[in-house]
Amino acid sequence: MQSNTQMQLNDKLIHCICEEAAKKFNIINKYKIPIGVSNRHIHLTQETVEKLFGKGYKLHIKSMLKQPNQFACEEQVIVRGPKGEFPRVRVLGPTRSINQLEISITDSFKLGMKSIIRESGSIAGTPSFEVIGPKGSVTLPEGCIVALRHIHMPPDIAEEMRVKNGDMVDVKIFGERKAILGNVLIRVSPSFNLEMHLDVDEANAVCAKNGDFAVLQKLLL
Amino acid sequence: MQSNTQMQLNDKLIHCICEEAAKKFNIINKYKIPIGVSNRHIHLTQETVEKLFGKGYKLHIKSMLKQPNQFACEEQVIVRGPKGEFPRVRVLGPTRSINQLEISITDSFKLGMKSIIRESGSIAGTPSFEVIGPKGSVTLPEGCIVALRHIHMPPDIAEEMRVKNGDMVDVKIFGERKAILGNVLIRVSPSFNLEMHLDVDEANAVCAKNGDFAVLQKLLL
Repeated sequence: MQSNTQMQLNDKLIHCICEEAAKKFNIINKYKIPIGVSNRHIHLTQETVEKLFGKGYKLHIKSMLKQPNQFACEEQVIVRGPKGEFPRVRVLGPTRSINQLEISITDSFKLGMKSIIRESGSIAGTPSFEVIGPKGSVTLPEGCIVALRHIHMPPDIAEEMRVKNGDMVDVKIFGERKAILGNVLIRVSPSFNLEMHLDVDEANAVCAKNGDFAVLQKLLL
Repeated sequence: MQSNTQMQLNDKLIHCICEEAAKKFNIINKYKIPIGVSNRHIHLTQETVEKLFGKGYKLHIKSMLKQPNQFACEEQVIVRGPKGEFPRVRVLGPTRSINQLEISITDSFKLGMKSIIRESGSIAGTPSFEVIGPKGSVTLPEGCIVALRHIHMPPDIAEEMRVKNGDMVDVKIFGERKAILGNVLIRVSPSFNLEMHLDVDEANAVCAKNGDFAVLQKLLL
């Protein structure tokens, strides 16, 4: 038999432990993270743009993306691998300092190319491929990546979510194919809007569409 | 200030609560579940086989699958939707009482068909499509599903894992794209071998290949 005081203490203790557990296991749902689904696309240097579309060519904005100053271009190119090609791969602008093709693992089978999961910009040793435009073609020695799933985040939100640039987090997704995705990279910059990027394989695997929401899951997988 | 007895009681209480939490949150890793990746495929009735391949035609075994008596056939068919087609869709045998095409959500975009996630056999109201064989073609009024992710399990393993036919579980997958997939259907039958079936979208989203392992995650998502 326990005394009333003891039972009250135990109740308090249980409450404290539950609070701690809740902190550890709970979802941070204060900030819902909008999901953006990235279909296969390519970033080009101005030099490559001119090889494919002609000297002095400037890319044309088709629509603005959620990340500031980023846009889908009117321009599309043919991308060819050893086993197959995609005839209409969207160019994203503005031009960058490196050429980078972003595909899904499903796409890599069609192209007959190795799939290497990388952070954007980290293209050393990634597969070579051919790009064909209306005025010329170019074989790029490297630059084909499967984008590492990631969350763009401005610094104030990163601070509130208690994550920092380069962190890997787990993200919870709801619905018919609910899931927790691990190894999601946090990318923090004042030039970012809050948005999680998934490729088409990932989006379809969890039935996520543009504008759906995810939340950080503070639970180690 | 607490008495020694009280502190011991509290320690014991903390221990009990942690044990309970561990039971709830822990992974059942006693049984590793082999993953089988299902590419798009079709199950046919004998009647449809004869319409596509000729009267009295029998399917030919190409290779046995992990589930007893199930096999990939030498035969392939063209599957056509409103927007596109797949020229070589593998027929699985033996013939069944219903025709059923299983595709990924990625595939559904190429075919231009609605993607409806369903358990195998539950085809009422699913999209119509055309199947073309060497000797004829047939438009099936329904039967195109995106397979609900599921685990085949014999009754003895189901009992040990404390799950039953029809349960929905969460499954943990390890590696570069580690994840916990929710809404995974348990299917129990004496004629099943232990195996989790994922479609290509799901497999690529978590970097799972045939023969990789998953474990049940006893944590509600």
